[in-house]
Amino acid sequence: MPSTAEPDALSAGAKRGRPGYDQDSVLNVAVQVFNKHGYDATSMGLLAENLGISKSAIYHHVPSKGDLLRLALDQALVPLEAISEHERARTGTAEERLEFFLRSTIRVLIERQPYVTLLLRLRGNTEIERTALERRRAVDRKVADLVVEAQREGTLREDIDPRTTTRLLFGTINSMVEWFRPDGPAGAQQVEDNAITMMLDGLHTRNL
Amino acid sequence: MPSTAEPDALSAGAKRGRPGYDQDSVLNVAVQVFNKHGYDATSMGLLAENLGISKSAIYHHVPSKGDLLRLALDQALVPLEAISEHERARTGTAEERLEFFLRSTIRVLIERQPYVTLLLRLRGNTEIERTALERRRAVDRKVADLVVEAQREGTLREDIDPRTTTRLLFGTINSMVEWFRPDGPAGAQQVEDNAITMMLDGLHTRNL
Repeated sequence: MPSTAEPDALSAGAKRGRPGYDQDSVLNVAVQVFNKHGYDATSMGLLAENLGISKSAIYHHVPSKGDLLRLALDQALVPLEAISEHERARTGTAEERLEFFLRSTIRVLIERQPYVTLLLRLRGNTEIERTALERRRAVDRKVADLVVEAQREGTLREDIDPRTTTRLLFGTINSMVEWFRPDGPAGAQQVEDNAITMMLDGLHTRNL
Repeated sequence: MPSTAEPDALSAGAKRGRPGYDQDSVLNVAVQVFNKHGYDATSMGLLAENLGISKSAIYHHVPSKGDLLRLALDQALVPLEAISEHERARTGTAEERLEFFLRSTIRVLIERQPYVTLLLRLRGNTEIERTALERRRAVDRKVADLVVEAQREGTLREDIDPRTTTRLLFGTINSMVEWFRPDGPAGAQQVEDNAITMMLDGLHTRNL
């Protein structure tokens, strides 16, 4: 869908003498084509067609389809990995840090929706995919550790299995890439609050 | 993976003179091939290869690839649709009926995992797929209605958006097709209880 990649006269690509696209715009289109057709089924020819430029013009921006995938996955993984570097991920109770982690993950997912979609649909067929999946698992493990820590400090209930709970937390959050619409009736903040309320406090009024 | 389809001498197929496979066994293999390669990318040749039989032998069981898809989707949709026919889906408070619906959905998902996986991954490219997606949406709407009804009766909190909440409930439950393993450390009943606890009562101990 080339219409979403706005030509930008001040872009790096333009400065380098290729008007119409910079690397971010190419990525923006590439991730949509990957998500629509699947990475394996996407050829450089199909990408060129969607960008409305020649294959050789794509190679001006990136050396290969694998590099496009790596750069697109970084758009999801770098902000996800940055969560644990934040001060609020390092101070306070495990319960507070867990809530910060979950809220931050939801925000990255909403802000980088197509890139996180790409990450979540990876099958691990190539080395680039396997490396990305390993980085994703490292992020997931931080949340799993916080669930155990919060159970130990007594803020999270003991009658739950931490491993299953971590899967359920990510299941709830990750589903958003499939149904959240930026122009839908429920805004990003409302969806974030609603998800946190359900996961941590439950839907029953008897918990109020 | 033909090894999962046990030859059964007493099967309907065998009785009709085709030893080795009955229709259920063919479906069992077909759903795995569809999930692995995607429905669109699966040819009758690929199915025959995975079944270890000839293409014409498949046509003995079903007239077309579309019929295989329809039969496989019914393996998920029929039990999901049956939930609302159960007495417990029709009597009691909206809160009780909602919990029955959610627990029953989890059970179908775990018992019919490959078939529900197929249903959840549908893109809606063909009429058969669109019909199945419409049936799935009709099931989803029953849960959405129960959320609203439980809010009205005062058993579900008011500070949540019913539409978003329904999405989150299905997001949590549907994620199980991707990670639940029948031979994993957490059994079906534990996963069901854990999910219900998180969704309805929350993870915080302060709700206990």
